[in-house]
Amino acid sequence: MGRQTKRASRRRQARALQSSEEVFKQLPWAEIRTAYSALEPLTDGDLDLVHDASMAILERYGIEVLSQQVRERFKEVGAKVDNDSSIVRVSSDTISELIDSAPSSFTLTPRNPNRQLELGGDQIHFGMVSGPPNVHDCIRGRRPANFEDYQSLVKLGQAFNVIHFFGNQTIAPIDLPPNTRHLDTYRSSLTLSDKVFAVVPIGRDRVRDAVEMVALVRGLSLDELVFSPSLLGNININSPRKLDEAMSDAALALAEYGQATIVTPFTLMGAMAPVTLGAALAQQNAEALFCIAMIQLFSPGAPVVYGGFTSNVDMRSGAPTFGTPENGKANLAGGQLARRYGIPYRSSGCNASNTADVQAAYETQMSCWSAMLGKANLLYHAAGWLEGGLVASFEKVVIDVEILQHLSSFLSKPAINEEELALDSIGSVLPGGHFFGTEHTLERYESAFYNPILSDWQNNESWVESGSKNATQRATDIWQSIIEDFEAPELDQGRKEAINEYVDARKQEIQSDNSV
Amino acid sequence: MGRQTKRASRRRQARALQSSEEVFKQLPWAEIRTAYSALEPLTDGDLDLVHDASMAILERYGIEVLSQQVRERFKEVGAKVDNDSSIVRVSSDTISELIDSAPSSFTLTPRNPNRQLELGGDQIHFGMVSGPPNVHDCIRGRRPANFEDYQSLVKLGQAFNVIHFFGNQTIAPIDLPPNTRHLDTYRSSLTLSDKVFAVVPIGRDRVRDAVEMVALVRGLSLDELVFSPSLLGNININSPRKLDEAMSDAALALAEYGQATIVTPFTLMGAMAPVTLGAALAQQNAEALFCIAMIQLFSPGAPVVYGGFTSNVDMRSGAPTFGTPENGKANLAGGQLARRYGIPYRSSGCNASNTADVQAAYETQMSCWSAMLGKANLLYHAAGWLEGGLVASFEKVVIDVEILQHLSSFLSKPAINEEELALDSIGSVLPGGHFFGTEHTLERYESAFYNPILSDWQNNESWVESGSKNATQRATDIWQSIIEDFEAPELDQGRKEAINEYVDARKQEIQSDNSV
Repeated sequence: MGRQTKRASRRRQARALQSSEEVFKQLPWAEIRTAYSALEPLTDGDLDLVHDASMAILERYGIEVLSQQVRERFKEVGAKVDNDSSIVRVSSDTISELIDSAPSSFTLTPRNPNRQLELGGDQIHFGMVSGPPNVHDCIRGRRPANFEDYQSLVKLGQAFNVIHFFGNQTIAPIDLPPNTRHLDTYRSSLTLSDKVFAVVPIGRDRVRDAVEMVALVRGLSLDELVFSPSLLGNININSPRKLDEAMSDAALALAEYGQATIVTPFTLMGAMAPVTLGAALAQQNAEALFCIAMIQLFSPGAPVVYGGFTSNVDMRSGAPTFGTPENGKANLAGGQLARRYGIPYRSSGCNASNTADVQAAYETQMSCWSAMLGKANLLYHAAGWLEGGLVASFEKVVIDVEILQHLSSFLSKPAINEEELALDSIGSVLPGGHFFGTEHTLERYESAFYNPILSDWQNNESWVESGSKNATQRATDIWQSIIEDFEAPELDQGRKEAINEYVDARKQEIQSDNSV
Repeated sequence: MGRQTKRASRRRQARALQSSEEVFKQLPWAEIRTAYSALEPLTDGDLDLVHDASMAILERYGIEVLSQQVRERFKEVGAKVDNDSSIVRVSSDTISELIDSAPSSFTLTPRNPNRQLELGGDQIHFGMVSGPPNVHDCIRGRRPANFEDYQSLVKLGQAFNVIHFFGNQTIAPIDLPPNTRHLDTYRSSLTLSDKVFAVVPIGRDRVRDAVEMVALVRGLSLDELVFSPSLLGNININSPRKLDEAMSDAALALAEYGQATIVTPFTLMGAMAPVTLGAALAQQNAEALFCIAMIQLFSPGAPVVYGGFTSNVDMRSGAPTFGTPENGKANLAGGQLARRYGIPYRSSGCNASNTADVQAAYETQMSCWSAMLGKANLLYHAAGWLEGGLVASFEKVVIDVEILQHLSSFLSKPAINEEELALDSIGSVLPGGHFFGTEHTLERYESAFYNPILSDWQNNESWVESGSKNATQRATDIWQSIIEDFEAPELDQGRKEAINEYVDARKQEIQSDNSV
């Protein structure tokens, strides 16, 4: 069957199913709370030791800071700055004082106010994969990512209610010119989606463009936007202990405009951090708190998030690995550290598999469960990440959405009351009988249980008759039908034009700058 | 490449790798403790309500008991017995008094005393799949299970250190005569393995045969075995509220011989129990406590385990489903109930997928994580279960062993001390450098991280070069090489002969009984 015929037949199927309004029934957009107590691998004494070690790192060894502006400002508050090495050494007291102004919770409002995120406390939010240079799907195979893929992944992230935000670009659209591609991706994020998204955190200008564009779409001034932030930005310190200027510039611009910065040291044990968990956590903590202190030094009270990304490498090859037991423990401990400082926490749902197989699933589950049990407020890369971040997989998006829906249903605590205990119904069924036909069942059967979008519970005979498709193969059908049926969320024509004008003007400006 | 050539080449590969003694490096046999606090979806008030409802079920509606002996004994302690319906109604006080003699922990000793299991408290033990009538592997496909499959699965369960016990027969060997097949499977379990295994819990005789045979292998008298139990037996009440005679006979025989009985009501919400979790838990609790009380009534102090198997059905088809969010919550709540009564807890690692794919993985993870977080002491079906229990999958055994190894590594708490914090090592690496060559890394790199047996962390190019095998395909290679290289644990020739004689004599006896 050719592509067109297949598509038409799928469309017919979809229409046939649309009596119940949707091709598939997903969970509604909802706040998800991890109301259970956190799992805590570190004792209070352990936490003190990690904290003390991280302070010793900042006092004794310091951070290499490439931005002169940042070095000077730290000097003003008593830090020791070595002009030859650009290393800044800060005392524990100064760090404590500075991070004290970081808010323990804050709200992000995208263009659709119903998609607000409250960051802090028990709430967990799931984000799309971000950053891979390649994409994979089971139809077109593995290939360098392009702008069409970017848009397709935004459509998928928008369509699934359990995806709450976009962390950075869904993929790096390497077919577009590097200096202006952020304008194209921002425009897509703002027109194809109405959810929170993240800026490209490289220098001031890319941040300002995002801020200007989201202000246009929301109909707010930049001053108003400071008090109603919309955007995330994630900076990675160059571990160990090196802060690039493009990163610090982006963070300081985000803070100046009142937008949220996540600081996520990339502390891979065995490579960019020591092989032991305690040391890697101490280094992660030193690097994260240094950047958070820097942001508060320039813009006290600016919203920040403590990012943990400690995992390990395969010591035989040096390849990064994710979803390992070590990664799991680091996700739990990262939450303990973030809570110690009263700062919202970011973790990630990752894996290092080459394909959307059971390895991808069990590694992703290790990272997701541990992040959830560590009470992460943001779960980056929660849908679609593959190959240690080198690939965004369309099938994996669907698989992960199913996993996230499972987790969010699992997290809702059951109600126990007379109605739910149903003593009369139990008494009405004879020993050895069944409850299929009881009134209690008939009143509730449609909504009693979580309805999966991907799982197939047919018996073996029916499953074989319908083609013996495994879950990864079924995921192909789902993402295709979503992209095919996608409708962008409504946006006022005037605002759409304002964005287009902004993008055109900025592209001209950047191109003429480049030609100088 | 033909089967023989392939096998020979695999053998050569294996020998080449055996410089490090093993084809693959697995975790050693170890006690696994869930030292984290349990996740508790029910408040103390909720627990009271569930308990009260379960007592109301026993007092008002009762249990249909097919064994006259059991009905009479319950009557002696004040239960109301309806002779027409065989329904036994027991008061809450009687139940509480009876279950009070159940021990909160006990030890099972198989023929290898190093494979002892301590049941109760924080320890979690993982068991092989048990019971399916079919098997599947990627070479021979799906087919009815036979005795060769039984033996192969025992070999796999014996070879993997993270498998602690065998719950019931690994599969039902339907090629053997039903009346004597338990003798063949017991003999295999005792000769191919030295771990704890479970009896076939149908009537007294099959229990006695297991007891006699394990006594022969351990060189103990039946009296001595009472004080050093070896065996498990799992009885399923026929939910709702019906206790078959074959089951109660088996349980009472196990208790009489001092062996452990697990009581596991099969409370599938929507089918054998109401659709609401509270009601299903109340029914599970009523049925489990009734059987535990019965066992204690006949043999006070006999070792028992509280089994939870509450899951749900697909309300569209009535098919049982496992690894759902509802199943996850029931696994947590089951642990709360078992702890309330101070009785060891059994849960299960299940899924309803038709194939060893990502659905099988994410459903299995939901059931395993929730069982672990619910502090289960026994995790039944932890390796190899597929299709809601209709199939034992060879590939899934390997996949699940990998998942269980991940979980057990995750559960070990990290040490935080000066050595692990490695401040000097952190100071010795320049900003932007790496830790690959530091002394701290070199001293630890071989054992710093968990080494998976199934995960493939090659880069994409190498992975493609080595055949683009997904994890399920790689699992085929692993189980084949294990079965090929399997060596049975040593057993004294005299004891082996004693078992053979026992089996021969009993087969004759049973066959002549049948011919009457």
